[in-house]
Amino acid sequence: MDIQAYMQTLGQQARAASRILVTASTAQKNQALLAMADSLEAQAEFLKAENAKDLAQGKANGLDAAMLDRLTLTDKGIASMAEGLRQIANLADPIGEISDMSYRPSGIQVGKMRVPLGVVGIIYESRPNVTIDAAALCLKSGNAAILRGGSEAAFSNRALASCIKKGLELAELPTAAVQVVETTDRAAVGALITMPQFVDVIIPRGGKNLIARISEEARVPVIKHLDGICHVYIDADADADKAVKVAYNAKTHRYGVCNAMETLLIAESRAAEILPGLVKMYQEKGVECRGCAKAQAIVSMNAASDEDWATEYLDAILSIKVVADVEEAMAHIAQYSSGHTESIITENYTRARQFLAQVDSSSVMVNASTRFADGFEYGLGAEIGISTDKFHARGPVGLEGLTSQKYIVLGDGHIRI
Amino acid sequence: MDIQAYMQTLGQQARAASRILVTASTAQKNQALLAMADSLEAQAEFLKAENAKDLAQGKANGLDAAMLDRLTLTDKGIASMAEGLRQIANLADPIGEISDMSYRPSGIQVGKMRVPLGVVGIIYESRPNVTIDAAALCLKSGNAAILRGGSEAAFSNRALASCIKKGLELAELPTAAVQVVETTDRAAVGALITMPQFVDVIIPRGGKNLIARISEEARVPVIKHLDGICHVYIDADADADKAVKVAYNAKTHRYGVCNAMETLLIAESRAAEILPGLVKMYQEKGVECRGCAKAQAIVSMNAASDEDWATEYLDAILSIKVVADVEEAMAHIAQYSSGHTESIITENYTRARQFLAQVDSSSVMVNASTRFADGFEYGLGAEIGISTDKFHARGPVGLEGLTSQKYIVLGDGHIRI
Repeated sequence: MDIQAYMQTLGQQARAASRILVTASTAQKNQALLAMADSLEAQAEFLKAENAKDLAQGKANGLDAAMLDRLTLTDKGIASMAEGLRQIANLADPIGEISDMSYRPSGIQVGKMRVPLGVVGIIYESRPNVTIDAAALCLKSGNAAILRGGSEAAFSNRALASCIKKGLELAELPTAAVQVVETTDRAAVGALITMPQFVDVIIPRGGKNLIARISEEARVPVIKHLDGICHVYIDADADADKAVKVAYNAKTHRYGVCNAMETLLIAESRAAEILPGLVKMYQEKGVECRGCAKAQAIVSMNAASDEDWATEYLDAILSIKVVADVEEAMAHIAQYSSGHTESIITENYTRARQFLAQVDSSSVMVNASTRFADGFEYGLGAEIGISTDKFHARGPVGLEGLTSQKYIVLGDGHIRI
Repeated sequence: MDIQAYMQTLGQQARAASRILVTASTAQKNQALLAMADSLEAQAEFLKAENAKDLAQGKANGLDAAMLDRLTLTDKGIASMAEGLRQIANLADPIGEISDMSYRPSGIQVGKMRVPLGVVGIIYESRPNVTIDAAALCLKSGNAAILRGGSEAAFSNRALASCIKKGLELAELPTAAVQVVETTDRAAVGALITMPQFVDVIIPRGGKNLIARISEEARVPVIKHLDGICHVYIDADADADKAVKVAYNAKTHRYGVCNAMETLLIAESRAAEILPGLVKMYQEKGVECRGCAKAQAIVSMNAASDEDWATEYLDAILSIKVVADVEEAMAHIAQYSSGHTESIITENYTRARQFLAQVDSSSVMVNASTRFADGFEYGLGAEIGISTDKFHARGPVGLEGLTSQKYIVLGDGHIRI
């Protein structure tokens, strides 16, 4: 197989489909999404049978239990994908939305119209549900999608693609609106990220190394999500109850997620009061605490090294640092944060405002758990990822992140004088 | 001189300055801008004397008249730069603007806050006024700037930098908020565009080749402006007076600008009525018309080749094509346009709507001259360039294009359940 030629063909087809999707009506896009949902449910047995082939292969290839778990399609998982499709059908269509129209002194009327980006390439690893989520978000936002899943999910993704195709056909949309890359050859990724003529943006979802490599090699913009080294800072004027509640939730609600707290910062004036009880709660939950010298002087725990401050554990481990004040907390965050999510716990108005204005992360919070940094919690309806970039899309990326705005000008024969 | 080390130092200083600029007050930024304006006026003689050195060198190096003209600083030019600074001081400060705050079912309040991008690198050619415009827009939007002007303007840019520095000092802002690269070594550009740790975005302003090379080699996002191959389409239902007025203005108001029309498309049903008079007007103005066979059959003019449709003349030349209808016009635009600006002249409601929705350019107009595609005309107050990209900023880029939005979350001890 000539991978370059194959990917070029996918690219051309996607570009052609994207020109049709620009003018697809909201009703037509929703019809496709609902038909996909129906098809997933109708094909549940087929999906599970194809998925079983991936699982068998995965076991034979020695995939670990966590990977096999992520790969597995259950009835519940299929129902949840169908539900996701119906939810996205229910979201407002962002395309064609006109905003900020106003008259200028010259007499022209100027505003902005929201339009699709064009063609979105998504590169992801084992979870097959990404195939459905990504297809749905791209379609609703009027973008053609080229999906490149992991080779370990090849059978599952091909089966899911057949359900997507059914939905597109039923709504009389081009089937090239969503294309699943059919080869597991790694060269396909290299081709996909270097075709600016056919692909407008790449969204990689997966491990840090995958994302770093794609960002390095891509010749098109990448919406990327690197680490989530999130901080909670308990300020001198924190309400102790809120502090304990939020700091406990931010670490223990789920460990392996990017919006979990990895480092707790606490003002020196409150450390002796709050840390002993909080650390006990963590330890009872099975969380290993690693503290700076000052924290260790207050409660017995392991020592945190410099490396700890720069680590996204994604695990039941927490580093704890005692700081003098909000300035030192923000300096620590500026140095070690990955720019994902940080929260201050305080009753102090001025410091809350200062933290909100100065901390340079995609989500900045006051008295709330970092676990809220999520497209659903923010009301985006769905998310295709969380961007730690500042350019274009920042934070949870929903439909709007997959669009652009062009200017529109309405005149009545107006000319420039 | 170790160019890498020098540029790294500029980068580090810019990054440090950007952290201070994030929290600079609106009053402080405006004070700096107004002081720069005063300094420009006070230093007019010095600026002209330094500029004269560049001009002498340019003449000795054989720069052509147009380049020398762009390079020349006159009293009028200096007054206009000062006026530009005062206008930017008068614009609303975009930083800290909070939008879309709303309560979510969980009880948290979520919205967005506008923040600077961080450090902006600007690479430009001979016009020294870019030094002032770029510095002002970056400063007002809370970004640190690294400016790399052309070597032919080195004395002028250094002199302008001294006025900028005076303004920053007076407002007690870090002087590294705006740094002018002091070396004319080309390696400085290579270093500037490959320091993602210090530079968040690059804006190249200059010829097509410069921009293409920078886009190719940059390791940070580039806000770029490639060609301006702009179209006016005179529809079957056009008002003839408006059509002639707009088509004449779009071509002849100024030739060497990116928003000038380069190709006129006209519906077959109106060509015999409108073309003869319009072409006569162009020819009387000294515009060379190059037509397709159908256009040539109506009025005598040179033949347009395929290359003409793909050419940004930036000159008194116009290509003219007779098309069957709006569909053929949009297909031609999709194939040849650079995605800058297109305008339809029509009284037909449905076709106006169709053109607005389907044409994929940064500005799409109805019954208005393409010459309006400009930051001042759109009410942005000033522009740092016009982006033909879809990602991040599209169309004229003003203060907002130099910013990003982060999410902010306000809670009262809220945790994720």
